[in-house]
Amino acid sequence: MDSPKNSNSALIVNKGIAQPPAINPRAFQILKKRPEKSLSTTALLEGIRNGSTPLLAQAITLVESTLEKDREKAGDLISACLPYSGNSIRIGITGVPGVGKSTFIETFGKHLTSVGHKLAVLAIDPSSGKTKGSILGDKTRMETLANDPRAFIRPSPSGGSLGGVARKTRESVILCEAAGFDTVFIETVGVGQSETAVHSMTDFFLLLMLTGAGDGLQGIKRGIMEMSDLLVIHKADGSNIEKAMQAKVLYQGALQLFPSSPSGWTPTVLTASSLENTGMEKIYTTIQEYMQLTKGNKFFYKQRAEQSVHWMRESVDDHLLTRFYNNPRIKNALPEMEKKVREGKTDSFSAASELLKLL
Amino acid sequence: MDSPKNSNSALIVNKGIAQPPAINPRAFQILKKRPEKSLSTTALLEGIRNGSTPLLAQAITLVESTLEKDREKAGDLISACLPYSGNSIRIGITGVPGVGKSTFIETFGKHLTSVGHKLAVLAIDPSSGKTKGSILGDKTRMETLANDPRAFIRPSPSGGSLGGVARKTRESVILCEAAGFDTVFIETVGVGQSETAVHSMTDFFLLLMLTGAGDGLQGIKRGIMEMSDLLVIHKADGSNIEKAMQAKVLYQGALQLFPSSPSGWTPTVLTASSLENTGMEKIYTTIQEYMQLTKGNKFFYKQRAEQSVHWMRESVDDHLLTRFYNNPRIKNALPEMEKKVREGKTDSFSAASELLKLL
Repeated sequence: MDSPKNSNSALIVNKGIAQPPAINPRAFQILKKRPEKSLSTTALLEGIRNGSTPLLAQAITLVESTLEKDREKAGDLISACLPYSGNSIRIGITGVPGVGKSTFIETFGKHLTSVGHKLAVLAIDPSSGKTKGSILGDKTRMETLANDPRAFIRPSPSGGSLGGVARKTRESVILCEAAGFDTVFIETVGVGQSETAVHSMTDFFLLLMLTGAGDGLQGIKRGIMEMSDLLVIHKADGSNIEKAMQAKVLYQGALQLFPSSPSGWTPTVLTASSLENTGMEKIYTTIQEYMQLTKGNKFFYKQRAEQSVHWMRESVDDHLLTRFYNNPRIKNALPEMEKKVREGKTDSFSAASELLKLL
Repeated sequence: MDSPKNSNSALIVNKGIAQPPAINPRAFQILKKRPEKSLSTTALLEGIRNGSTPLLAQAITLVESTLEKDREKAGDLISACLPYSGNSIRIGITGVPGVGKSTFIETFGKHLTSVGHKLAVLAIDPSSGKTKGSILGDKTRMETLANDPRAFIRPSPSGGSLGGVARKTRESVILCEAAGFDTVFIETVGVGQSETAVHSMTDFFLLLMLTGAGDGLQGIKRGIMEMSDLLVIHKADGSNIEKAMQAKVLYQGALQLFPSSPSGWTPTVLTASSLENTGMEKIYTTIQEYMQLTKGNKFFYKQRAEQSVHWMRESVDDHLLTRFYNNPRIKNALPEMEKKVREGKTDSFSAASELLKLL
């Protein structure tokens, strides 16, 4: 079924493995503005452009840092990487815990690397700081992919606001693209606010589901199905195959009733098994069809442009709000104020006004 | 079919028409803090509590004002009204232009007032400032309801950010409830961001659709169907009836595949015609069933508590962001910066950083 030999068409604009091109002199020009830091940032840029995974990892650590001096350096590095970015397809992958996201990413990821793609796997999980149960935190769950020289796996940045975590991931996408990765997965856990963030930084949104109508969606946030470009009914193997096929027909029917997407694409339902490695080639070609359609009708480019503007606003907003909520006075007063509002002892607007007066 | 005589069960906790109760002394205590303004705010509170529509309208105008001194006075008034608020069912109503929202609100609204309810109709349309095509702006579209002494219709506050418009509407809900309105409709146009805001300030979300699978949803934002507690297929009259019934079956099937709501409620599909005044009683009893279920399992109260906390955060955020984006330097620089980002001449993060440096 899934024969890598038949998969010689490119998923994205850059066919095959991206070769590290000569470094654009413009990048150095940007870096020259800060001579005291240019050595290290330049070294990082060179490393990234030469495909060094350890240096890419180090650069992402820089992007994730909350230290002011690191933020500046990270900004320079991203500006320098920008001319080399954009040449990937960015795929959001979501699904509730238990749907088999890790095994799916491993199996589909191996399929992509086996046909010549370079794959970076990132994640957004704002809860990971609190629960220490970060998705992707345990790379051993993706052992084969983690040891694949064509793949790069990075756990979710931990802690902080969703805005902060999302910002870091979006910046990491740029670094990964500059490092020659032509496919980027952004994984999210599908039960909170983070899917909207992932949706607004990806070209294609894939929702993993289980067989059994409705069952597999227990706990997933409402609205996600309608955002998805592809529903994959996972674990379609063994005695599950028939149920998966029934679910496929049901969901395909339901999706036709959904509001149409401005992309012109009709969301698709497929079945797949990571255990038996089936369905992967069809998912791959479906994504290719989506790319062909949306590059043809220019939706792809329009969406990316709008996403960039969106992220400029998000960055500004995140900065302003983080500064406010990180203030010790606010941090101190907030829980009590939330409690009072929740118990109806004060109204939202008086509480907000009191909080604002603290600064 | 829709016989008002059979509709003597109450939609909400307070049966029948809310009688203006004696004014709570706590309200005056709150007002006493600002003696120089207490007269006028007190007069407004008294007027609202006595069910004076002109004074309610004036109070909403105060809430909508952006003047600093009005904001303070509005805050006092809302605090004073708070003890009398909460006793309504808040219903969000959305649907694309052309679906017949105004005629539906008029027909369903008349049905509610005819069985003894007092109905306030508000709206959120952040675009109304720009386009001057405000929904509800033209009360003549709801002539019968506008002349009904048991109904109060208020157009969307105009202009400003979505956050600002939404905040004003949410404050107006409190004033309407204090004035004894036991049912509040919040109408939205269904094509932008405002449904999420409406969803987060209402107890029940109603999506109006047209017959013809999918057709009626052209242009509606993805995610809204999944947020809805009730889909009403409107204009189910004349030669449309059969198509409406078919659409009902299709959508009812599709909704069963959706992620389940934490309310424990399974979204319902009904048909209705405002032209022939059919289906209204069934919509009414369905909302009652929803209320019974969610008050029984406490979801109703939990959701309201979480919505209050949400709105505290939204109020703070809106205040901080509005102050930033209203700064003349930012206002001046923003369009050019957005253009540069859209055209890929700079990245989102450098642009954000440049904007932040302007202040």
